[in-house]
Order: sequence, then C-alpha cells, then structure tokens
Amino acid sequence: MSAFTDLWREIAEVGGTPRDGYVRLAWTPPEWELRTWFEAEARYRDLEFEVDGNTTMWATWNPAGATGPAVVTGSHLDSVPHGGAYDGPLGVVSAFLAVEVLRARGVTPARPIRIAAFAEEEGSRFGVACLGSRLMTGALDPERARALTDADGVTLAEAMAGYDFDPARLGADPARLRDMHAFVELHVEQGRALTVPVGIGSSIWPHGRWRMDFTGQGNHAGTTLMGDRCDPMLTYAFAVLAANKEARTHGAHATVGRVAVHPNATNAIPSRVTGWLDARAASTATLDELLAGLGTKIATRAAKDGTTVTITAESTTGEIGFSERLIDRCVTVLGARTPVLPTGAGHDAGVLSAVVPTVMLFVRNPTGVSHAPAERADDEDCEAGIEALADVLEELACR
Amino acid sequence: MSAFTDLWREIAEVGGTPRDGYVRLAWTPPEWELRTWFEAEARYRDLEFEVDGNTTMWATWNPAGATGPAVVTGSHLDSVPHGGAYDGPLGVVSAFLAVEVLRARGVTPARPIRIAAFAEEEGSRFGVACLGSRLMTGALDPERARALTDADGVTLAEAMAGYDFDPARLGADPARLRDMHAFVELHVEQGRALTVPVGIGSSIWPHGRWRMDFTGQGNHAGTTLMGDRCDPMLTYAFAVLAANKEARTHGAHATVGRVAVHPNATNAIPSRVTGWLDARAASTATLDELLAGLGTKIATRAAKDGTTVTITAESTTGEIGFSERLIDRCVTVLGARTPVLPTGAGHDAGVLSAVVPTVMLFVRNPTGVSHAPAERADDEDCEAGIEALADVLEELACR
Repeated sequence: MSAFTDLWREIAEVGGTPRDGYVRLAWTPPEWELRTWFEAEARYRDLEFEVDGNTTMWATWNPAGATGPAVVTGSHLDSVPHGGAYDGPLGVVSAFLAVEVLRARGVTPARPIRIAAFAEEEGSRFGVACLGSRLMTGALDPERARALTDADGVTLAEAMAGYDFDPARLGADPARLRDMHAFVELHVEQGRALTVPVGIGSSIWPHGRWRMDFTGQGNHAGTTLMGDRCDPMLTYAFAVLAANKEARTHGAHATVGRVAVHPNATNAIPSRVTGWLDARAASTATLDELLAGLGTKIATRAAKDGTTVTITAESTTGEIGFSERLIDRCVTVLGARTPVLPTGAGHDAGVLSAVVPTVMLFVRNPTGVSHAPAERADDEDCEAGIEALADVLEELACR
Repeated sequence: MSAFTDLWREIAEVGGTPRDGYVRLAWTPPEWELRTWFEAEARYRDLEFEVDGNTTMWATWNPAGATGPAVVTGSHLDSVPHGGAYDGPLGVVSAFLAVEVLRARGVTPARPIRIAAFAEEEGSRFGVACLGSRLMTGALDPERARALTDADGVTLAEAMAGYDFDPARLGADPARLRDMHAFVELHVEQGRALTVPVGIGSSIWPHGRWRMDFTGQGNHAGTTLMGDRCDPMLTYAFAVLAANKEARTHGAHATVGRVAVHPNATNAIPSRVTGWLDARAASTATLDELLAGLGTKIATRAAKDGTTVTITAESTTGEIGFSERLIDRCVTVLGARTPVLPTGAGHDAGVLSAVVPTVMLFVRNPTGVSHAPAERADDEDCEAGIEALADVLEELACR
C-alpha cells in the first residue's frame, strides 16, 4: 500500500453514502470530521496548525532557517451534494504527502511551506462558491456572507456558530495574504482534456451563477383551462432548453442543475419556479453574448406564458489567467511536454490569483466525470501528482 | 355575522401562513387541530361522533324515528401545500350548518343524516389522492397504503401512529358502506364554469398521476463538454413543454407541477430528475391517446439526450358519472335552471360513486383559482350552498 492509498483510505468513509457519493457540506458533521482529521494530520507531522477567522485551516512546515512569506498549497474538503471523492480532498491529501516527499528528499526549504483547506468552496450549502477564499481576499462582504441561508433557512452565521466559530471574525485578511509568496492548488481534472497523469493549469473560463425566478398564478391542475393558465413551469422548461441551445451555439457551457418549485404539488399549477443557471465560456464577450441572447428569448416566452421572469447574478467571475511566471517555472520543473490547459471549473486558486501569484496542477480524470459519484483518478496518477507537487513546492520554496 | 361566517372564522387560522395560503397535510398538527374542531362541533350539536379505522371522522344526526342507511354529506379537511381555504373545509362546514338549517326548519328526517371528513383527500403528503375513501371502498390495498412514504421518508403507518391511530385498522369497510343511502359532497367549484351561486355535479373527467423518472449521468457543470452530456433535466424540460402541447391539441388538461432533482446543485449536471404529470380529459379514449403520444415523444427525446425515461402510473381514475337519479332529484329541488356541470377535479365523491349513489353540489368560484391562496368563494354564495345542501338532504332523508 502506498503512502497515498494509506492516507486516502483514512477519509474514504467520511460523508459517504452507500451508492450515492459524498455529502460533505460546510459546517456539518462530515465536514467537521474532515476538519478533525486535518488537524490530527498536521499535528502528527509536526506542522503548525491554525484556523483563521474565515474557518480556513492552515498547517505550516516552518523549518529552522526558513524565512519570508510561505509557499502555500492545498484545496478544500467540502463536496457538492452526492459528489465524488477527489474534488478538493485530493489537493489537501497531496499537500500533506508532498511535504513528506520533500522531507524524505532531505530538502531544507528557504521559505515556510503551508497547507490550506478552504471552507465552502463548492458553494453547495450557501450558494456562493469559493466562499472562504472570497472572504479572505475581500471579494465577499462578511455582512452579506453571514446573512446567506441554506435550503433549510439556516444562516451561515448560525451554521458557523454551531461549531463554535465566531461569525464576527469573518472578513478580509490582508496580513495572511501578505504572508503568501505563491499559491499552488492541485486538483483532479474535471473533463477529459488531460491524457497524461499531470498537467499545469493556464486559466479559468469566465463563469457565473444566475438565479432565474419565474412567477405565475398558482391554480388547480385539473380544472384550470389550458388557455387560462399562467404556468411558470413552462417558462422554466423553455429556459432549460434555450440555455442548452445557446451554449451549443456559442461553444460555451450552460447548465440548469437546480430547481425549486412552489408549492411543488402534483395537482397544482406552480405559482413560482426558481432555476439556477451555471454558464461558462472561453471569453467574457462570449459569455455576455450568451446571457443576453438567452435573456431575450426567455422574456419573449414569459410574455407568451403570462408569467414574469427576473434573472439575478448570484456570483460571476471574469476570465482568470494564472501567473505566467509560475506556469513557466512549473513547465521547467515538470518538463516541456507537460500539458498546459485551461479549465471551465472555478477554484479557490482562481480567487487567490487576483492577489497572490497562483498556479494549478491537474491530475488526469479517466472518465471526465466530476461532481458525481463516478468521479475518480487512478492511484498511480495521484502519486504522480504528489511527486509533481513536491517538485513545484521545492522549486518555489528553495530558490 | 351569519352562521356561516361565524363557523368559518373558527378554522380560518388553522394551518395558515402569513401570505402563502394553507398547509394542512394529513396527520400533522394543523390537520389534528381541525380534527379536534370537528369533534367539538359534532358534540356541541349533539351529533354522534366516531372515527373509523381509516381515520375518517363521522358525525351523525340520528333523531328518534329515523331508520335505515344514512344520507351522508361532507368532504375533507386536508389541503394541498399552500392551498386555499375552501377546497374541502367548505363541504364540512356546510354540512354542519345544513343540519342546523334542517333543525331550524323543524324537519324530522326519516333516515339518519351523517357528516363525513375523509383523510388525505389531496394526496399531498403520501401521493395517493382520496386515500381515505379509496381505503374504505377497497380501491386501495391497506398494505400498500401503510408503506407509502412522505417527502421526509416517514411512512403513512408511522404518521398515523404518531396520532395514536392504529395502522392495522386501515382497510375496506363494507358495513359502513352498506349504511350509506346516498352521498352528497358540496365543494367549491374549481374553474370558472359556474356563473350562478350553486350548481350540480354531473361527472368527473377521467384523470391520473404519472411519475416520470429521467436518468442521466451526473457530471460537472463547468467542465463537461455539451456533446459529452447525458443531462436528464433537458429531457424533463422537453416533457413539460410536450405535455402542455399535447393537452392543448387534445382539448385536455396536463400539468407538471412537481419535480425532484438529484443532486439539485447549481454546478452539477443532475443524475436524476423526477417529474409528476397530472393529466385529465373529457373521455378515457382522449386521455389514453394523450399519454401514448406524449410517451412516444419523450422516448424519442430521451434517446437524443442519452438519458432514459420510465413513466409509471401512480393513480388513475376512469370517467365517473354521478347518479342520474340523484342529479334529477337535485334539479327538482334546486330548480330546473340550476346548472349541471362536469369537473376536472377528483373528489371522494368520485371514489364513493362506484359503490353508493352519489352527487355533488358546487359553489361558485369567482376567480376560478383553486389549490392556491387566491382560492375563494363569496360568503353569500357559501350561504346559498348551505341552503341548497339542506334542501337536497331534506329531499333524500325525508322522502
């Protein structure tokens, strides 16, 4: 059994369901179990453990002689509901093991090396992705964050307080950012673009989440004449198909994966339907064009259905290019034939790249499936990822 | 204040929400409060109160000299989630007040007059409409009923037991059916078909509920190429629009008002979507044709989307004509100009009509809205309904 399979097995059961992937939402028992595991791993490896005001966990290897801002690596531990095992935890497990590799190599870093685990990266509980890193960089107002609610109406402040975290401590942390020399996030690749074990991230597509609220007239499903209806489910259904078509036309990605219906009864025409649109494209111009076209089409349909629609951006992120200089150094260390590739997925690395030199490493995903139970990476590829991460950390921390 | 507004006010708060209608689901605290109210009203009026094994409540006026099977009236007290005040309770309140009217008239009925309140008529909690009357007539197997689950996974047996009802007592009750001479259900009309205060029901359109299960491949919304997707939300959306189109083409009604998505996350292509289809038509042939056409269209689309679909009937009811003889007697009593009209809505009266001579009275609905907070009837029309019900009960119980 390798060091990877050994450590990976330690968290394999946490938040798992028999046949339906992982549910590891922020500030819930499974995520708390992963937090406990992280702290134990940090202490076992003689790393300095710390939790900051945004509930991000940190584990620092600060050997004698190391000075200056740290080279930081890591990812997140939360999952989408019924997601896969790799998205997030692979980067954290790899970070611990890359430190082991460097120690085994007898490397003495000139800078501290620090491991991070950010909170609520998926935004699956409170709707804002990369919540921990957005708070840290000041991209998200702590007042707004505290008031966010989950599907059960629990506020983020209440959820945090349930685990004895102080919601008043949420917010920008410039001192901690100044103490970051660079950030490297290792992550499972989420498509089928990578055909060798390890690649280097070049950029993140511009992307966002929009809430589409459709309002009509609730009524009886059996007795209301078809011509008398103002059924928001029809406008919603049209929007789902139109988003798909627009994405295909624009070479972009668009998905409606979440919906809420009121009252959601078989024999009632709904009064309200809310759908969430996830859209991404290679350029901001393309994304804007997609949204404009889609908005017009949905408005036209709503008029026909006698419904109203409002589309509200919940989070948007422009195109993010990772540090050219870090990409070059990764290519130097990992070899000129290492693929350099963009991704359609958002990451804490994308948020941090606005304020800290940042790069990503990707580990091959043989099926391309992610955010679902079938998500996986081969052990050998994960081990190659750990070696690559160790190489990059050595490059950044020792030179 | 009239006797109607007085009694109506007693239950006006039960299960109400500030701006969003009534939530009075079977075997929950609001429904229990209505049960307590029913028993108190029965005892206050010196009616014999009883709850049977199917948790149907009965209140019988059995004056000296009355013999033979009873004339039964009543309706149900449960609501759809966030429904209106009238659907169900109007028939129960009117029944109590019609008895008052007969007593005030000095009528001495030759047969007992009995008021019924059936359980889970809407099927909003456990998915099977007219559950109480279906159990009583033997149309629903008690074993199946006990195993039904609500949205939280609570079984019907557990829900009943929570209120000290014995699930083992569910089932057909032929003795109680034999003790019914006739059944008259007064109900708020649920469309805009009635333009005078009171009408007589002629028939119920054949109707049913079908569960449509769409299965695809869960995946990442950001990274999965459009051409690589097997997104069941697309097939669902197509089905919603196709059902609407088929209904319009066939002069029928079709609605998809309820949906469940897994995992229902903004950044995940769903692995499963379930939609519930409610469809009704003036004839069984039309309904069958609608469903066959829709099934074919959805299957074709599913093949294109790379998804699978299965459509399962959850409950179906053929065309129901009420008793011709009772309709004639109502027309005689209420006047030749009283409208006689069909309805697209299912009712306990429809279930009972298979085994007991049955008829319905409808009270005008000025907006035609039902199963929604805006559902209403004017007080004067409700009072006219009570008088009409008293007239019909007098006709059936005294002659």
